[in-house]
Amino acid sequence: MISPAAVTGSLNSNVPTAGPARPKNIIIMVGDGMGPAYTTAYRYYKDNPETEEVEQTVFDRLLVGMSSTYPASVSGYVTDSAASATALATGFKSYNGAISVDIEKRPLPTLMEKAKALGLATGVAVTSQVNHATPAAFLAHNESRSNYIDIAQAYLNTDADVILGGGQQYFSESLLAQFTAKGYQHLNEFSQLEAVTRPKVLGLFADVQLPWAINDKQGHKLSKMTQKAIELLSQNQQGFVLLVEGSLIDWAGHSNDIATAMAEMDEFAAAIEVVEQYVRESKDTLVVITADHNTGGLSVGANDKYEWHPDVLHKVKASPDEIATRAIASEQWQPLVAELMGFKPSETELTALDEARMQGNEPLTVALRQLIDVRSNTGWTSGGHTAVDVQVFSSGPGARLFGGHQDNTDIANKVLSLLPESATQQ
Amino acid sequence: MISPAAVTGSLNSNVPTAGPARPKNIIIMVGDGMGPAYTTAYRYYKDNPETEEVEQTVFDRLLVGMSSTYPASVSGYVTDSAASATALATGFKSYNGAISVDIEKRPLPTLMEKAKALGLATGVAVTSQVNHATPAAFLAHNESRSNYIDIAQAYLNTDADVILGGGQQYFSESLLAQFTAKGYQHLNEFSQLEAVTRPKVLGLFADVQLPWAINDKQGHKLSKMTQKAIELLSQNQQGFVLLVEGSLIDWAGHSNDIATAMAEMDEFAAAIEVVEQYVRESKDTLVVITADHNTGGLSVGANDKYEWHPDVLHKVKASPDEIATRAIASEQWQPLVAELMGFKPSETELTALDEARMQGNEPLTVALRQLIDVRSNTGWTSGGHTAVDVQVFSSGPGARLFGGHQDNTDIANKVLSLLPESATQQ
Repeated sequence: MISPAAVTGSLNSNVPTAGPARPKNIIIMVGDGMGPAYTTAYRYYKDNPETEEVEQTVFDRLLVGMSSTYPASVSGYVTDSAASATALATGFKSYNGAISVDIEKRPLPTLMEKAKALGLATGVAVTSQVNHATPAAFLAHNESRSNYIDIAQAYLNTDADVILGGGQQYFSESLLAQFTAKGYQHLNEFSQLEAVTRPKVLGLFADVQLPWAINDKQGHKLSKMTQKAIELLSQNQQGFVLLVEGSLIDWAGHSNDIATAMAEMDEFAAAIEVVEQYVRESKDTLVVITADHNTGGLSVGANDKYEWHPDVLHKVKASPDEIATRAIASEQWQPLVAELMGFKPSETELTALDEARMQGNEPLTVALRQLIDVRSNTGWTSGGHTAVDVQVFSSGPGARLFGGHQDNTDIANKVLSLLPESATQQ
Repeated sequence: MISPAAVTGSLNSNVPTAGPARPKNIIIMVGDGMGPAYTTAYRYYKDNPETEEVEQTVFDRLLVGMSSTYPASVSGYVTDSAASATALATGFKSYNGAISVDIEKRPLPTLMEKAKALGLATGVAVTSQVNHATPAAFLAHNESRSNYIDIAQAYLNTDADVILGGGQQYFSESLLAQFTAKGYQHLNEFSQLEAVTRPKVLGLFADVQLPWAINDKQGHKLSKMTQKAIELLSQNQQGFVLLVEGSLIDWAGHSNDIATAMAEMDEFAAAIEVVEQYVRESKDTLVVITADHNTGGLSVGANDKYEWHPDVLHKVKASPDEIATRAIASEQWQPLVAELMGFKPSETELTALDEARMQGNEPLTVALRQLIDVRSNTGWTSGGHTAVDVQVFSSGPGARLFGGHQDNTDIANKVLSLLPESATQQ
């Protein structure tokens, strides 16, 4: 285990040399796939066009540094979410696909396990299934992220106090009965969450992922889960460690779907603002926010044009896959698409959409996304990840440790060094 | 003029509240077009594959924050080099194309003018023509970056002590005579630079741009110009302000030419290391390094594959345009291309190259670049700029001011606040 002094022994002059006060509570927030182009795009997406000034976002307020994300060398330079979450949860590099196991597939001790051993409460709140790669690496160990059933089963033995997100399909009736026998309140409906007043809770609010924020009229589910998680975990007098993930930023990025991605960014930013407020009031809570990697090779501006048009995105009223589903079900699909896309496509565009519509939902979805890309002048290079460094945002006791450049394993080691003393001596 | 106290009134907890010591000398370094994907790519390009560890670069050592780059709202969210250089040189937003004039085309006071008024020495050292947008905005005022002849003429009245770079074609014999009459030593050959022992000096070492670093067997011209500029400017006992630009990173980015871009990054990094060493030894010099914008929508990894192969780039022995020129001039072009590209193209690739070769230099150059992209798995979205935030690197007295998020105009205002007292009261 490294000490805070060792951490601050960096060459970077931005990192103070005096050790910080230790926080009582630690909140890690991961914007899955949220590379620098996402936070930049989000600033301009949120810009009030009525003012000459471009308004700051919560990301601007909290930026302290950046992080490299490369996995163990066996997997090259471009990480997946599993290897990166393993780095963030354990401080060790592993192969792409690894859930907190090393390259020999041996379990690596996690932040959540160390916190539990110290008597702290732990929890996760995510918008993907709760057993997806990022939360899985914080709570479990598995040689493959794809072993969703095994990982769900493993959650039974984590003693985690709060588990909130999607993933009903991975939790059998018999597994749920075992959670209940252990004292967990099992929730199946998001509306049940508000009434919960004490841990432990397993809330699974969707079969797999939660609804896209762009389609979700109830709004800001991640903020509500985050607020509730803090309310429940803070009942532990020793403190808590919470992981919050804006999981679907990455999923929208994989689909090269800028309108959906910006709505997911807004969902994540709103959850950060909840935490920012809590950090400000509690004074003994550290928040560290980062991304596990960048997704899609997003470009804010493309095709040789010095333009980006976020106004286009605000007018899109549903995710392109939802628009496609409704357009295929409707005889009068052209006015419907115009209404939901927020603009009237040209005759040429309508002809292309018509051809895509005959081929089915997926081709029409792709065609709609591309139309939004053209109108907003958004670019992409991949349906996968890229290696660009991600940002690190922080506030609260110890935040200064995260200034300047670091590796994702350094983030974990700094967080681990901020756990109560007895943990760092384990 | 803002005060250091105003600058540090930011919400960002990373910026210290105590005012820093003022530096005697200020060195601004601009990696033109160098967005976060360039510094990330450069780290992996420099990685020693013999070690499990990925080695840190000078960018990693010096990272302190990030910066937004948007121009005045009349030009949207994506800046060009002129508007961004105007922001960095004056602290004001302007339109794309502006050379230190506001949106009404009125001149804006520049850092170099304020430094001169204080009795400091000033200089620029760049790899483009010396009157290109970035150095132009530091030294002159013009309604358009394209007015190269006017800008060259305007340099006569800047009293700059050191002007080093390319651009012979913009300086007529009569203009050069006027520089000489003002006491400037005029250099036309790079080999003349070493013998210069005192300011003032106008060194124009190429018709337009300096040679691509990948083709330049003499090597690291920017480092040598930087070293000489510091040696000459530091003769002024009041101190100096120097602008150094790695100009051609941007040019390689516009061409979507990753092998050439990485060699230019290496050229710029080497110049930064010269400055880093000087900052360490002199103790009274501040260096602030940033990019004016991002170019090309570069992705480190693309096409759905979680891979990037910098080893491919190290084997490329000349810029693709140089390889194309030589391949077109040669009967035995296939073995020549294989030798210069560092790998034997497949039969399919050779067929495509043969077709491109028949169409001429430019099509063959593009085909060669694309072949390198495919082999290295590099992605691009544009031949222009994108809006992604850029990084800020700093060391020396006042470096901490540049931590966290800021706008490019904030960078200028912070630097201006660090000039000697009498300047900030002007």
